Amino acid sequence: MTTYPSKLLENAVNELSRLPGIGRKTALRLCLYLLGQPEGVARNLGEAVIRLRTETRYCARCHNISDQAICAICADPRRDEGVVCVVESTRDIMAIENTGQFRGLFHVLGGKISPFEGKGPADLTIGSLEERAGNGKIREVVFALSANMEGDTTSFYIYRKLKDFGLTFTTIARGVAVGDELEYTDEVTLGRSILNRMPYETAYNKT
Amino acid sequence: MTTYPSKLLENAVNELSRLPGIGRKTALRLCLYLLGQPEGVARNLGEAVIRLRTETRYCARCHNISDQAICAICADPRRDEGVVCVVESTRDIMAIENTGQFRGLFHVLGGKISPFEGKGPADLTIGSLEERAGNGKIREVVFALSANMEGDTTSFYIYRKLKDFGLTFTTIARGVAVGDELEYTDEVTLGRSILNRMPYETAYNKT
Repeated sequence: MTTYPSKLLENAVNELSRLPGIGRKTALRLCLYLLGQPEGVARNLGEAVIRLRTETRYCARCHNISDQAICAICADPRRDEGVVCVVESTRDIMAIENTGQFRGLFHVLGGKISPFEGKGPADLTIGSLEERAGNGKIREVVFALSANMEGDTTSFYIYRKLKDFGLTFTTIARGVAVGDELEYTDEVTLGRSILNRMPYETAYNKT
Repeated sequence: MTTYPSKLLENAVNELSRLPGIGRKTALRLCLYLLGQPEGVARNLGEAVIRLRTETRYCARCHNISDQAICAICADPRRDEGVVCVVESTRDIMAIENTGQFRGLFHVLGGKISPFEGKGPADLTIGSLEERAGNGKIREVVFALSANMEGDTTSFYIYRKLKDFGLTFTTIARGVAVGDELEYTDEVTLGRSILNRMPYETAYNKT
């Protein structure tokens, strides 16, 4: 049991070490770093963290983090509102946006169905996705969920909920990652990439 | 260049990634974690960090972090005020206190002499250590500084400043770490551990 020389330090170590991936030793190192910096560093950090949690809003349509009632992506008239990409979190939107390859809209589920973490369909924004699907503007739903059992369960659940709306359902391609050596690719991925092989011209954007 | 869906999120990522060892990806992960937690988690963290920096005091005698004008160690009448252990930071005090092997007082330098980091003797609490050495109560100064050139430079500088006060100077033992295999010990450490060999009875507390 470590004894801290002050309650303030102990308290800051306690709070920092609640964060995932930050243990008590790291938390102590961060505290001592902050003590050696100008006061503004700690003040800005503390205020940014509080404001993040208390003032962040979520897009009323897609549930992405947003500064406005409707997020910048949903509000962009150049985007194709007929295509909705279903993701788990804001982080996935950021990753997909970084590729510059998607011009549709998003829908943030807020996680995936995971009995292990106690998350059921009611904990996700599936009801709101159903409403969107019923508005007549959407023609394609793209699933971009984790390539594991929970992701697959979630997309299948949503597929069954929406299949009577007359939409097209797609899922992002699973296969050998660009740059990967075939001999080091796991056999499930390799197997699926052979089963789901695609026209050469499509794969290399030659059309 | 990542685009963030909100200024609040971008701002929090910026502030968190100023901390040593926390990159922008980790900062984003921490922010999304905080957004998923009850409001109190972010509020407590933010306030703890601000209070740490704005309210922390330092012991007027040894410069350790403290809740009081004089720290708990300096104020403890059971401690031997004739022995002062010179350390770089509060973290070293915590490490030494954890061993339960030292009953004297401390003196926190606030770093070590390091031209590389632009730290000179005037940036450390050496003047205040000289005052303490001159008060007639101290008989031994124990150097517990890093076992590298900067630590050695610092202890030598302090030694020359204090050598006329008629004190005993010691340094914590350098040698093969307890539990280490000899064949994996670096040769400088092994060489010094042979040169500075010690009576068997002393090393094993058999006296």
